[in-house]
Amino acid sequence: MKIGVLGGGQLGRMLALAGQPLGLRLLFVDPLPETPARLLAEQLVGDYEDEELHHALADCIDLVTYELESVPVAALFHLAEHRPVFPTPHALRLMQDRVREKRLCARLGIPVPPFRRVDSLTDLRVAAAELGLPLMLKTRYAGYDGRGQRRVVAPNVLADAFADLGGRLLLAEPVVPFAREVSLIAVRGRDGTFAAYPLVENHHVDGILRWSRPLRAVEAAAWQDTAEAHARRIMEHLGYVGVMTIEYFVTENGLQVNELAPRVHNSGHWTIEGAETSQFENHLRAGLGWRLGDTGARGASLMVNLLGEAPDPAHVLAVPGAHLHLYGKAAAPRRKVGHVTLTAATTAALAERTSQLADVLEVALPDP
Amino acid sequence: MKIGVLGGGQLGRMLALAGQPLGLRLLFVDPLPETPARLLAEQLVGDYEDEELHHALADCIDLVTYELESVPVAALFHLAEHRPVFPTPHALRLMQDRVREKRLCARLGIPVPPFRRVDSLTDLRVAAAELGLPLMLKTRYAGYDGRGQRRVVAPNVLADAFADLGGRLLLAEPVVPFAREVSLIAVRGRDGTFAAYPLVENHHVDGILRWSRPLRAVEAAAWQDTAEAHARRIMEHLGYVGVMTIEYFVTENGLQVNELAPRVHNSGHWTIEGAETSQFENHLRAGLGWRLGDTGARGASLMVNLLGEAPDPAHVLAVPGAHLHLYGKAAAPRRKVGHVTLTAATTAALAERTSQLADVLEVALPDP
Repeated sequence: MKIGVLGGGQLGRMLALAGQPLGLRLLFVDPLPETPARLLAEQLVGDYEDEELHHALADCIDLVTYELESVPVAALFHLAEHRPVFPTPHALRLMQDRVREKRLCARLGIPVPPFRRVDSLTDLRVAAAELGLPLMLKTRYAGYDGRGQRRVVAPNVLADAFADLGGRLLLAEPVVPFAREVSLIAVRGRDGTFAAYPLVENHHVDGILRWSRPLRAVEAAAWQDTAEAHARRIMEHLGYVGVMTIEYFVTENGLQVNELAPRVHNSGHWTIEGAETSQFENHLRAGLGWRLGDTGARGASLMVNLLGEAPDPAHVLAVPGAHLHLYGKAAAPRRKVGHVTLTAATTAALAERTSQLADVLEVALPDP
Repeated sequence: MKIGVLGGGQLGRMLALAGQPLGLRLLFVDPLPETPARLLAEQLVGDYEDEELHHALADCIDLVTYELESVPVAALFHLAEHRPVFPTPHALRLMQDRVREKRLCARLGIPVPPFRRVDSLTDLRVAAAELGLPLMLKTRYAGYDGRGQRRVVAPNVLADAFADLGGRLLLAEPVVPFAREVSLIAVRGRDGTFAAYPLVENHHVDGILRWSRPLRAVEAAAWQDTAEAHARRIMEHLGYVGVMTIEYFVTENGLQVNELAPRVHNSGHWTIEGAETSQFENHLRAGLGWRLGDTGARGASLMVNLLGEAPDPAHVLAVPGAHLHLYGKAAAPRRKVGHVTLTAATTAALAERTSQLADVLEVALPDP
């Protein structure tokens, strides 16, 4: 069985690592030759929208998926004429657009913060009047890792903020006062079976995910069922197949959806060692129509992103329970070059290890 | 960091899967192009003894290891002139020879069954008189998976058995009456640090490993410390670096060494999901001088070899807790084409899953 994957980044790389033991061959498509996935699988280098490349791909694979949200949706619709694509291009198109995904949530009775479409400076002034200040101005399409966002605090900078994000379709929303950010990684099989991992707490610095940790059952109790019900509702509505991620703000009014992602997610990397089945394996199993793997946690864990430059592996592995994942990427400011998942049998043991890892990486980490 | 590996079989493949996340590049050497490791790493196709190939290899790697015991030891001595080789060629030479490894054990006070060198039919008759019948006649070199062995039950078949194993140097030993076969996977770092996994019970059918399961602490209590002391003694004596396996018979007189292997081992495959750190990762960490990873078990597990032909992945993965590993090998009678590791939080849950897997694979499995 051979699966084509659009995008050869670290998510693709980890899909390949999960697929190899299952006897799956992955074939990546990426415009760049030097991808993280290249060392583990074959790769076609070319433009995502190149229709000749689509034909070449369709000829040698059974199934198509994608590991990045910014892949041109038209390419997937075209590929879907030849081979099954999961998650469906419709789901991707919806989740590429912050306005459409929020509208869907609202329509399905899933709480989202109030928002306004902003196509013009006039729209922005209206939004500011209606929602109040401060507000967040975000690009509707193609934002990630905190890019394409401006926080607007005063009326006199509305025009500047609008110009900064120049010419793109935007969305305005109030600055949501939240206690925590959490995410749910859910997966739906071809036969409609559903599974979800424990909710994960996420901590961002400068818009980039710094660490994630699965919540213990007792911590998640207030929200786990609610979040799973949301995921089921969205996935059933879309006829979704594969892994989907919901990012939430935890506010005084409960969970509010921040964003949906039609793919495996950085906040699910802990599942490689910390869950019975990884999000990567479950994404592939879903697409193939195989039984979904158990999503339960194994002990306690914490995932920390490695940003900018990879640390010395020897230093990281000196911490008991540290599992190192390097992506084979060159160093660059703010770039995700790898991650570490710490595992331990108990929360107390994890706390001890976390403080050791914080010393090695010189970052602030939570007391689990 | 780039590591050359002689042999591109399934052990090499799993070394590559363990090394990739650590940022290690593996480069395999194998006389055959279609190896299990080829999909995950670069490969040089050529004879192990080809000195030009050694130079080409040494030019592009930092360190050498091997995944099979039958690699010509002269090749490793030659490579060791250019790059560090682990485990040392001396250890390999010793463990390739059943007589030398047993002598070493005896010299170090480690119990081995009585044995006799058999270079001639006369030697065999003397051995039969001294050890009694029945006895096992084994080739000194290059035996594996039950090959190169004859059980001799009566004096009148001595000559036939000797002729069957024709012309090779042999070893005779009594048929050891044993209750169980167990193995210890141990690892020693470059700085002399030592770690060992829980003892594993192994069950063979027709000389081929059928299943392995790590013993619970209470089951292993009588032998764990003894076996670890043996491993330490052998490894310290040899200045050993990397993973080493000791196979034992459990007899009424306690543990008796059957065989040593200077490498990662089939009876350690359960460590991928069933232990904190896999044997493959620990072998690489040892060679690189990195801190050894925790060797403790995570819950209960059972490893079952897939022999002959790979089953349908969908059927295997329908069993909760089943982790499938296919090696990308063509089907052939008795060939190891993959394995399944079952994991569960408790022994009771594992027992339930084991009976499901036994039904799927149509093999007899233990009640853990």
